[in-house]
Amino acid sequence: MGKAADQYLVVDPWKLIEEGFHPERSRASESLFSLANEQIGVRGYMDEGYSGDTLIGCYVNGVNEERFLKEPMTYKGISNRICFMVNTVDWLHTRIELAGEMLDLNCVQFDEFRRELDLRTGVLRREFVWKTKQGQELRVSFSRFLSMETRELGLQRVSLTPLNFSGPVRVTLALDFSCVHESYRTNFWRCPKKSTDGERYALLGVTKNTKHPLFAGFEIHGVDADALEPITADKFVGCQFSLELEQGQERNVDRLVVLVPGQHPGEAPEAVWERGQERLDALRGVIYDVSAASNAAYWRDFWGRSDIIIDGDPDTQQGIRYCLFQLHQTYRGVVPGSNIGAKGLSGEAYNGNAFWDSETYCLPFYLFSNPAAARSLIEFRYRTLPQARERARDLDCAGACFPIATSDGTESCTLWQHASLQFHPTTSVAYAIWHYAKITGDTDLLYREGAELLVEICRFLATRGQWSPRHHRFGYYAVMGPDEFQMMVNNNCYTNLMAKRTFLYALDVLAEMAETSPDRRADLFEQLDCSDGELASWREMADAMFIPYDPETQLYEQHEGFFDLPHIDIDKIPVEDFPLYSHWSYDRMYRNDMIKQPDVLMFMFLYNRSFSLEEKRANYEYYEPRCIHESSLSPSIHSILAEELGRNEEALEFFRFATRIDLDDYNRNVREGIHMTSIAAAWMNIVYGFGGMRSDGDELSFNPKIPGHWNSYRFQIVYRNSLLRVTVTQSEAVFEVLDGGPVSAVVRGRLETVGKAGLTVAANGALA
Amino acid sequence: MGKAADQYLVVDPWKLIEEGFHPERSRASESLFSLANEQIGVRGYMDEGYSGDTLIGCYVNGVNEERFLKEPMTYKGISNRICFMVNTVDWLHTRIELAGEMLDLNCVQFDEFRRELDLRTGVLRREFVWKTKQGQELRVSFSRFLSMETRELGLQRVSLTPLNFSGPVRVTLALDFSCVHESYRTNFWRCPKKSTDGERYALLGVTKNTKHPLFAGFEIHGVDADALEPITADKFVGCQFSLELEQGQERNVDRLVVLVPGQHPGEAPEAVWERGQERLDALRGVIYDVSAASNAAYWRDFWGRSDIIIDGDPDTQQGIRYCLFQLHQTYRGVVPGSNIGAKGLSGEAYNGNAFWDSETYCLPFYLFSNPAAARSLIEFRYRTLPQARERARDLDCAGACFPIATSDGTESCTLWQHASLQFHPTTSVAYAIWHYAKITGDTDLLYREGAELLVEICRFLATRGQWSPRHHRFGYYAVMGPDEFQMMVNNNCYTNLMAKRTFLYALDVLAEMAETSPDRRADLFEQLDCSDGELASWREMADAMFIPYDPETQLYEQHEGFFDLPHIDIDKIPVEDFPLYSHWSYDRMYRNDMIKQPDVLMFMFLYNRSFSLEEKRANYEYYEPRCIHESSLSPSIHSILAEELGRNEEALEFFRFATRIDLDDYNRNVREGIHMTSIAAAWMNIVYGFGGMRSDGDELSFNPKIPGHWNSYRFQIVYRNSLLRVTVTQSEAVFEVLDGGPVSAVVRGRLETVGKAGLTVAANGALA
Repeated sequence: MGKAADQYLVVDPWKLIEEGFHPERSRASESLFSLANEQIGVRGYMDEGYSGDTLIGCYVNGVNEERFLKEPMTYKGISNRICFMVNTVDWLHTRIELAGEMLDLNCVQFDEFRRELDLRTGVLRREFVWKTKQGQELRVSFSRFLSMETRELGLQRVSLTPLNFSGPVRVTLALDFSCVHESYRTNFWRCPKKSTDGERYALLGVTKNTKHPLFAGFEIHGVDADALEPITADKFVGCQFSLELEQGQERNVDRLVVLVPGQHPGEAPEAVWERGQERLDALRGVIYDVSAASNAAYWRDFWGRSDIIIDGDPDTQQGIRYCLFQLHQTYRGVVPGSNIGAKGLSGEAYNGNAFWDSETYCLPFYLFSNPAAARSLIEFRYRTLPQARERARDLDCAGACFPIATSDGTESCTLWQHASLQFHPTTSVAYAIWHYAKITGDTDLLYREGAELLVEICRFLATRGQWSPRHHRFGYYAVMGPDEFQMMVNNNCYTNLMAKRTFLYALDVLAEMAETSPDRRADLFEQLDCSDGELASWREMADAMFIPYDPETQLYEQHEGFFDLPHIDIDKIPVEDFPLYSHWSYDRMYRNDMIKQPDVLMFMFLYNRSFSLEEKRANYEYYEPRCIHESSLSPSIHSILAEELGRNEEALEFFRFATRIDLDDYNRNVREGIHMTSIAAAWMNIVYGFGGMRSDGDELSFNPKIPGHWNSYRFQIVYRNSLLRVTVTQSEAVFEVLDGGPVSAVVRGRLETVGKAGLTVAANGALA
Repeated sequence: MGKAADQYLVVDPWKLIEEGFHPERSRASESLFSLANEQIGVRGYMDEGYSGDTLIGCYVNGVNEERFLKEPMTYKGISNRICFMVNTVDWLHTRIELAGEMLDLNCVQFDEFRRELDLRTGVLRREFVWKTKQGQELRVSFSRFLSMETRELGLQRVSLTPLNFSGPVRVTLALDFSCVHESYRTNFWRCPKKSTDGERYALLGVTKNTKHPLFAGFEIHGVDADALEPITADKFVGCQFSLELEQGQERNVDRLVVLVPGQHPGEAPEAVWERGQERLDALRGVIYDVSAASNAAYWRDFWGRSDIIIDGDPDTQQGIRYCLFQLHQTYRGVVPGSNIGAKGLSGEAYNGNAFWDSETYCLPFYLFSNPAAARSLIEFRYRTLPQARERARDLDCAGACFPIATSDGTESCTLWQHASLQFHPTTSVAYAIWHYAKITGDTDLLYREGAELLVEICRFLATRGQWSPRHHRFGYYAVMGPDEFQMMVNNNCYTNLMAKRTFLYALDVLAEMAETSPDRRADLFEQLDCSDGELASWREMADAMFIPYDPETQLYEQHEGFFDLPHIDIDKIPVEDFPLYSHWSYDRMYRNDMIKQPDVLMFMFLYNRSFSLEEKRANYEYYEPRCIHESSLSPSIHSILAEELGRNEEALEFFRFATRIDLDDYNRNVREGIHMTSIAAAWMNIVYGFGGMRSDGDELSFNPKIPGHWNSYRFQIVYRNSLLRVTVTQSEAVFEVLDGGPVSAVVRGRLETVGKAGLTVAANGALA
């Protein structure tokens, strides 16, 4: 794979630890130590300010700005508007002055630096000893966490302990809306209202273009209100005060911060100001320690349900727990209208937009740990169906086309070669409905939002597809599949196969509804002006869908003509050529048999049971050596298939990459934010890869294996309201229901019922 | 073809006449009545100012500006710089005031409007009777022409005749550098120097980005110098004066204008100022009438050599003469480093850039009328070889890649899908060398500039091309051929065939040089570090070049897979969908078997003798019905082949379109400028089409035909220093040498020698 780890953090089963400050990794650490609670995200930047390399990034889910290209492409169907998650307010803004020095780790002398994120509690703590030029030594620590229960609430604690002196320090605590959105080098806020009142301070921001209001307010605990001197400036409000410190005694100042966004762009700022003040009133007096304890309890519960234990491999143990923590704090389906950005809430890269990753890479984790969150992901697409319909019109098609990149449902990708040629986001929505309904049995969603989505998606697929005149085959022309190194091709196998499956599934669902919910089906048909004739045309298209396949070699051809493309030996590409996007002429990437990420192998993972082991082997052996894994999403899928094919070492190498992609900065870009959706794939990697779980059949199935140097591993899934634990050692695999009724599953090829008593299979497959 | 004429000009064999003002065609008229002398171009706008729809456009060949995209694509090989022919100075600026009214045809009352361009003299004259509100009637006429002999010289005459009054009018004559370059809504000039001195006025402009100086100066004749009141403003200099008019007496004021550009961007403005003043000195006292007479003599000479007479079809007679006039005034190879912009010097569209049109569509006219100009076109490419080498590097290739669009040799097309995928500009240069050398026998150019160009072009072709792994075929992947409706295809037949021909021709030339100029060849090999091994690799590539062809149907497949593309019946596309670029989703254009312009048929025209009549028929019948002719270059090529195939009515319809594309505004966009290169194709259309001339064999050949309703037509070509006239009537074709020695040519299949005595063949092909 040619990507190397670059490890600088301490390996620990439950913590992320930076020992000693690494200024050259300052931004990387900010991303890695970022916190979120789905509504709010904040990078692990220095509360006290830092004049070195930093991105003061604070994001609020759903608070977006927009930007129109200055030089738009004027052809129809080309989006010229970018909707992006905008950087908001530095709500941790702190300044500390001692003996005429301002605390700034880029300038002052300090020692014993340690930054630590405890995955069990969600608390980020950073401490060091500041040594002033005059010789004072002050132990400083900053702690912060975001409340998982009260989504608009964040807490900060500043602790100061003078080691060799007594005397005053000067402290500033404030809210600062003047942060620049770095990608566009612009501050997007105006602040029409602010207030200072005793230990409470508030500031209202409104985005300049989308007019989205955001209330920010805080309350200080631990300092006498009379000592506080309010300070205000443009887009800035807070206070200063002096703290009299006594040698050897720790002094804490706590801050309770509330961020309340408008419910939609354009909401009246006054209403949001009112609501913010009310929230601040309601939360008045929340105590840091109490709230921290309550948050720790929340996380304890999460780990109890969702932990994965790997015994014998500390690196991947830490890696997988970090993935789980980030997944859960970034998305759990509680903020209406939210989705999962490619970088979560940890940076500006990809504009905070969500991609097909949500349905394809993230959904399984939620399906098997938090089905309500999985449902919310699908509901996001239903909520944005009007925009998807509009997008289909832009492309001269009927139905609904889901965007490549989006925050608000509109297409936010301004590169036509992606936005107008890639349709896997659309088929992914259908796949997600199928997968969700299969695993949860939730016909309520399926027959309402699901069925409507399926009809509109089929309509898009029916009008975007075309018939070949010579062979009367149906297929898709001028498309880009998931593999973005084959730009504008005909009959991409993935696109055609997913479209065929989508047609057939929609027809199945509508047929099933004719039996079980005829009224709902009739309503839907009337509402959408849908007819049996239209359904018949989809059947015809599905039947005639062209799937390029060579029965002799059992190879699926990625697209018509792929097999005769000029060959590149990717191992011979000089390492300094990577990333290719930066070093190769743009067109050069698109005219070889080199691929960026799985395409044929992708559908072999998604519809795993539909392909024989021989087919998987043949296609893996053909495509993997042609894949440069330039997408961070690539390794996990390969790992799962490699494990199925008995290529254990390859599987483990990919898994290590997947779990530690950010911790070890494999792609050298974690400074821009964490790879949120690759992190989700890491979960699939262990559960589907080593656990051998398959969820695309009629029954859930398992075929667990274990890497040779692991002692054991253990994961848990929620399935049909039961909590199932799977523990795998070198000698056996144990299945047990911890909570709920017995579960049916195919274990090593046999249909079994697993209950609380557990089921044990030996390494050789024999039942215990 | 579905395009309709929109005729508003009077049909006349020698003139363009607008009778009565057509304000809704104001811009179209400005384009049609534009004048040029290769160095200077000026739209036929109103000297006196016009507050209606107008583009005050004055261009100086080689005076370019540049612009960088504000939002560049950052991938390698994507050009973000546009170099464009910049709008310069309004040197005809005139204002006339009478009885408190300013003359402006958008506001005042007037009558007897007539605008007339005499193709025999190159003089544009516009006249009308102005009726003031107070009742004065003043006959006003403006005449102008550009000296064909003194390239920096333009002349203007303002004639005023009071019809019913005597009294003063107030006149302003000036130079105005404040013109806005309309495409970018920007004025690109600063003016560091100006002078007023008696009847002489001068102004120096320097472009803001490229720092290209341009001197403008004028001298007034016909007004007492003492009466002139200088006026200056920012970027503006001139004078005002009063003229005492007497009823019934015409009063002329003449202006001699000199425009002297810097020899290159960045030349010291002072030096250009000096040179400009010197030119003004040298031309002092040039008399309008004398100069006009001398210009008329120039044009008489041109028509004597190059006229085409069509008897019996006034429309195409006017059309073809207009084409010849525009061709010659726009380009004749006298300005070093100039080329032929797609809109000539008549507007801003296409940024004044030159395309492959120069070699492919324009070269033949010059080859057969002015071989030195043809040589200059090739020398333009040699002069810009450094930029073409740089461009090849940008594309990760060796050798030289010539730009899609250029003014200064650099790639000026910022759409990667064209600039990085289209290589016919490069093979066109090789074709032009081949064609030029074949017709002129000029080995001097061929063995020096030609051979160097051919080697560098082959190197580009060798490194951009790739081998297919299955069939070991050589070809081009991810390309766009001349047909721009098939964007990113593999093995475009045109690209592959032209590359093959280029390799073989280069090898032939180098082999020939080994015999005839071994020293030159050795020098070239040393200079370019070229080896026989490299030549052998080109031979291998040429031999293995994949040319998609079906021997059964005799059809060449435009690219691999074209025959199985979804079919569109182009006759069923609603007329309101045109132009498709404006009405169809961008991607939708690229996934059907519809083509925009000839691609397979193009190479069948270029290498006409290499294909059998049956092949031409089969391919014409297949491709023409799929072609929507959205390129103005398309009809002529179809017309020539249609005539060869006996499809006479189609041929004539296309010819009418080609000759009158601008006069009748077939494409409804002549307002942006004339279709300079389509106009060149019109010449090919009659000479190659009806005249049946072929120049791609060892001998020149003719097979003349004549449309049924024409009485006769006649054209003349220069060939090997002889002037050959061909006259075709319904009963016979007469070939005669007017000047020079006898000419060998194949006439109706027989090799003949044509001398001054002439050769007559009957309509049935029998010799007289």
